[in-house]
Amino acid sequence: MPAYKRLGLELAGSLLLVAGSAWCADAPTASPNAAPKPAVTMADILAAAPASAWRALADEHTLYMELPAGRVIIELEPALAPHTVANIEAMARAHYYDGLSVMRVQDNYVAQWGDPEGKRTLPAELQSLAPEFAVPQGSTRFTPLADHDGYAPQAGFVDSFPAARDAKAGLAWLTHCYAAVGVGRDTDPTTGNGSELYAVIGNAPRHLDRNVTVVGRVRSGIELLSSLPRGTGDLGFYATPAEYTTIRSVRLASELPPAERSRLEVLRTDSPTFAALVDSRRNRHDDWFVHPAGHIDLCNVPLPVRPINSPR
Amino acid sequence: MPAYKRLGLELAGSLLLVAGSAWCADAPTASPNAAPKPAVTMADILAAAPASAWRALADEHTLYMELPAGRVIIELEPALAPHTVANIEAMARAHYYDGLSVMRVQDNYVAQWGDPEGKRTLPAELQSLAPEFAVPQGSTRFTPLADHDGYAPQAGFVDSFPAARDAKAGLAWLTHCYAAVGVGRDTDPTTGNGSELYAVIGNAPRHLDRNVTVVGRVRSGIELLSSLPRGTGDLGFYATPAEYTTIRSVRLASELPPAERSRLEVLRTDSPTFAALVDSRRNRHDDWFVHPAGHIDLCNVPLPVRPINSPR
Repeated sequence: MPAYKRLGLELAGSLLLVAGSAWCADAPTASPNAAPKPAVTMADILAAAPASAWRALADEHTLYMELPAGRVIIELEPALAPHTVANIEAMARAHYYDGLSVMRVQDNYVAQWGDPEGKRTLPAELQSLAPEFAVPQGSTRFTPLADHDGYAPQAGFVDSFPAARDAKAGLAWLTHCYAAVGVGRDTDPTTGNGSELYAVIGNAPRHLDRNVTVVGRVRSGIELLSSLPRGTGDLGFYATPAEYTTIRSVRLASELPPAERSRLEVLRTDSPTFAALVDSRRNRHDDWFVHPAGHIDLCNVPLPVRPINSPR
Repeated sequence: MPAYKRLGLELAGSLLLVAGSAWCADAPTASPNAAPKPAVTMADILAAAPASAWRALADEHTLYMELPAGRVIIELEPALAPHTVANIEAMARAHYYDGLSVMRVQDNYVAQWGDPEGKRTLPAELQSLAPEFAVPQGSTRFTPLADHDGYAPQAGFVDSFPAARDAKAGLAWLTHCYAAVGVGRDTDPTTGNGSELYAVIGNAPRHLDRNVTVVGRVRSGIELLSSLPRGTGDLGFYATPAEYTTIRSVRLASELPPAERSRLEVLRTDSPTFAALVDSRRNRHDDWFVHPAGHIDLCNVPLPVRPINSPR
């Protein structure tokens, strides 16, 4: 008997990251009793993926948040929150977030950062902003997920971000899956200017969809937020400033010299490879599984991320 | 402008715990412009709940897992995994788990504990056990959730545990929601004897339903597992034993003197109070929300836990 049980999971390669998704690649070998069959596991599918199935993160829309424990990499999605993303990028360029704090970590919910001690004054033009809870779906490159979604008429993906849309209303929006990054606000919907952000670190709080502007997704380093001590104050706010985690800096990747950038690529959700991956995850065929689910929820679909030019 | 934004959440009372659910009670006051209306927030509903809406945790089926950071309280559910629960309780009575380790914490997935260093020899009769992935629904007290579930014909609750059933097949099972506790196993389904357990610490991995025996739920202290450092080895296993978290002991609550027990009660899911709570969470009516969801997923339904005889 092995020293520990697998719980149905094996890792295809340690260089692969899957930010915000349970990474559960299948066993690399098929059952010895099974006839040879087409590649059906995630590991097989990714190994066979052409270079065109991947795209580099957009450096001009990617934030590096430097924490004492390391770098959190957030890719913003201007197509679905153009004004708020522009606001956040302007603040990053102005080094607004440097020295601010993670001041809230609520279990199974969010890690939130901003300016709890009132260190910064926002430029006047950033104080208020029309919310972007949903935007006209227009020309967004929406790849539908075939599976039923309880929270939206249609779930799917835009540019490798989990999203949803209402074709009748002509609207699309980013969804609150694990690792989603959104904009804290007060009761007034116009108060979400981007000075305070959160990342989802628990079971997808989809009821927040269309109530908060979601701006992007943590592509790497979500575990640096999700493993922080939980705040003991109301709502998971830390009881004292001494418990805050200091943000050393937040920079746009495009503003750093190339040598200081993290070169990552994400699987394109409009690729045939991704379609095959979703299908392989909807019904798992490796030996460990005895009851294929026949369904996959939007927020359980892996969005693989890996270093560019990583060895195979 | 307040020092931080609410993100739509306010806490009704710090004595309330909601293990494994985003705790997001509504604002305690209604809009000043609104006419008086029936209680619709979770805080209102819980404040008005009769004593009969709560039940004490079953001490004879509740484990206290003592970690250096504190007590994790796991309530087992014999109705849906009778033999496996009996196995685990026998091992707890034999102090089998004392001195073992949390050896795996995979982000957005599970924390897992057991005997990675082979310290223990299992009694021969516990080596193998028929899996209890689902059981005849028989007389289980199943309270259906009205909302569509992607992973099962019918989602709902049994004895304040999230569950699902297939009436046609006559089967019911516990589901993999946040804080669910299940039994690690190898490829052979009979290898899950209860010597190795895991708790869900991420987005509900419902595809594991009916592939693993789920035995219960962390009722308190899940944050002691979910905030542990993530393992850097394959699948989130710690790379070295030095990283393990030692389990001081695992005891059945009923075996401890009353003074050493944690006296908790959980909201009964077969109560009118719970039905009202689900309805209030399906469509949030506090001022912060602008777009009620009109739906709630099984694993987003709060299962409130609080100390018995807590002050109101």
